[in-house]
Amino acid sequence: MYNEKAYALGANRSCIRELFEYGRARAAIVGKENVFDYSLGNPSIPTPKEVNDVICEIVTQMQDPHSYTTAAGDVATRQAIADDLNARYGVQVQAQELFLTCGAAPALCAIFRALATPGSEFLAIAPFFPEYRPWVEQAGGTFKVVPADVPNFQIDMAALEQTLTEKTCAVILNSPNNPSGTVYTAETLRALAQLLKQKSDAYGHPIYIVSDEPYRELVYDAAEVPFIPAIYDNTLVCYSYSKSLSLPGERLGYVYVPASATDANALYAAIAGAARAYGHVCAPALMQKVIARCAHLRPDLRAYDKNRRALYDGLVEAGYEVAKPSGAFYLFVKAPGGDSVAFSEKAKKKDLLIVPGNDFGCKEYFRVCYCVSYDTIIRSLPRFKALMEEENTSL
Amino acid sequence: MYNEKAYALGANRSCIRELFEYGRARAAIVGKENVFDYSLGNPSIPTPKEVNDVICEIVTQMQDPHSYTTAAGDVATRQAIADDLNARYGVQVQAQELFLTCGAAPALCAIFRALATPGSEFLAIAPFFPEYRPWVEQAGGTFKVVPADVPNFQIDMAALEQTLTEKTCAVILNSPNNPSGTVYTAETLRALAQLLKQKSDAYGHPIYIVSDEPYRELVYDAAEVPFIPAIYDNTLVCYSYSKSLSLPGERLGYVYVPASATDANALYAAIAGAARAYGHVCAPALMQKVIARCAHLRPDLRAYDKNRRALYDGLVEAGYEVAKPSGAFYLFVKAPGGDSVAFSEKAKKKDLLIVPGNDFGCKEYFRVCYCVSYDTIIRSLPRFKALMEEENTSL
Repeated sequence: MYNEKAYALGANRSCIRELFEYGRARAAIVGKENVFDYSLGNPSIPTPKEVNDVICEIVTQMQDPHSYTTAAGDVATRQAIADDLNARYGVQVQAQELFLTCGAAPALCAIFRALATPGSEFLAIAPFFPEYRPWVEQAGGTFKVVPADVPNFQIDMAALEQTLTEKTCAVILNSPNNPSGTVYTAETLRALAQLLKQKSDAYGHPIYIVSDEPYRELVYDAAEVPFIPAIYDNTLVCYSYSKSLSLPGERLGYVYVPASATDANALYAAIAGAARAYGHVCAPALMQKVIARCAHLRPDLRAYDKNRRALYDGLVEAGYEVAKPSGAFYLFVKAPGGDSVAFSEKAKKKDLLIVPGNDFGCKEYFRVCYCVSYDTIIRSLPRFKALMEEENTSL
Repeated sequence: MYNEKAYALGANRSCIRELFEYGRARAAIVGKENVFDYSLGNPSIPTPKEVNDVICEIVTQMQDPHSYTTAAGDVATRQAIADDLNARYGVQVQAQELFLTCGAAPALCAIFRALATPGSEFLAIAPFFPEYRPWVEQAGGTFKVVPADVPNFQIDMAALEQTLTEKTCAVILNSPNNPSGTVYTAETLRALAQLLKQKSDAYGHPIYIVSDEPYRELVYDAAEVPFIPAIYDNTLVCYSYSKSLSLPGERLGYVYVPASATDANALYAAIAGAARAYGHVCAPALMQKVIARCAHLRPDLRAYDKNRRALYDGLVEAGYEVAKPSGAFYLFVKAPGGDSVAFSEKAKKKDLLIVPGNDFGCKEYFRVCYCVSYDTIIRSLPRFKALMEEENTSL
């Protein structure tokens, strides 16, 4: 007398969570410093001091900082977010086009539910964040995967075109990408927009882009992250402050529904209604007030960048093939031998915890999260090198 | 190309929200002090100073207070909640029986989804919180209402027995009750437990109680709120700190799945899985850390109690029939003439904003939220009296 699908989702822990728990158990035996845990994408740069200062100011000086807000969020917060986007991208986002949520996860769930009609299909581009699948399926949609564009990890337009059907209601994008660390170029996005416009016309209904952008600010080497609604009108943006302000546990994000999108008002209402049906009341109130004052802050990426360079250079020098890491805090690495599950098991024996790419839709690659200490990276490189040498010897 | 059900939920604002917006518009014309807005259940007693002090301490002294926690929540927080329940009720709640959520709303949604199987029915006892209906329906269940036990607002056991069927998977309770302000007595709960045990045996499957308890600490005149799992094993408890610590915007609550409940481990997993499918990642991290230190705090109810007495006495003196107000911050009042929608419209003309009981399943009653200023109550009483006199004159 309980729901079997819900049970399966709760009982089967993700591979990432399994690895993380294994790492903790292993650390108790060999010492924490001897376990090289690259499994979890938990931001390691500190929350900006300004954020914590503002929190103290608000709770000591503001009346009722913890009250309910409207379901869509405080207008002052939404205006601050709109102002920031407008200043950066030269666009004209309005406060009333934004809907604040308890992080990007429920934002995406609400969008999927709002778009799902009987038989509708949602396309993810491999490699993709594995939770998209249960979220789409819970919403009543069908989840389909477009094979990866190896080794560049842009979008394979021919493969996408083959996967699109009359039932496609949305294509899910995630750039900077988890797990590949790549950023979709303006060229890629323009080609995508052209294809989707053509198909929307052919099918007689819009195909939306759902753009999941928690890593928007985490880019290196001056890589540019284009603002997708400026390229394609029918784009619904999801954002989270988890990574940009290192506030992952605080659950603050938003949906942006551009007024220029087809059925924008109805879609905004449907997203609000879907959120309501999933138990949304409002985004955390204190954090809303923090964002009203801190939306302009940018992360200090020097620590991530230093890690990224050291790990990328070390892995390439050891003979690994690595996707160009322009953003987020992940490297996506080809498993020697091509079986990332087997390779991950071998790595585990050296206390290197890496995530096989199967759940991301790329079983030949593994993911390495470099939000760890620099020292961890430097001390782990000889082990990655030894692994590669063993692999070469066994050939 | 959007989901019609989600759209309807987002486009149709609740009657309560409509009234609240009307009140704001009206205040701009006649002055805020001349609008008597009894529509919203937004706590009016301040958040305890200790809570805000702890927030400042945590963000200035603790490392990484904003990190992800596990999906179920920090063990220290769950242990503090368990310790508090055990000290108060002489029970043996364990940390691992608790699952922290972004407030009671998603907690209830996750339970409904976890319990819903094809055809399953969820029973609410009128009067009930109107959001139960969309939450149950989104979860895939059928929502059924047990008529109110007028005028005591306990449970009409004969009516409940008639509504129970082999498909009933849960009975939703909310005591202290929104909107009636009544508290189910131990006697009522024991009779309910007996009936549900008998029916569970007859049907060959458990019928769970889902106990929604955000008002657990808000009781007056030394009313006792029994701990329902101590009376009926198959009870799933939902709690929120919104009302007890005046933190409604912060979204912190929990589910308690007693190990003694039938299929407890599977149910806990199903609730975790349902939460995951709805976009739950973790409850807000900073507030989790606050509750780890403040779970023992109780609200200072003097202001609510003073309001309650003044409003109750004033209404009874004016000739109104009012449910015995033992808890929460609501009075449930019989509309003179028996049509609460019509009466609410008449009250609106006197700038008294009261909520008709239709959405709560009791169309003859209206709800008055007394989390307003004492002065508002005193100044509103002549208007309530005048309304009653007009009603009597028109007979």
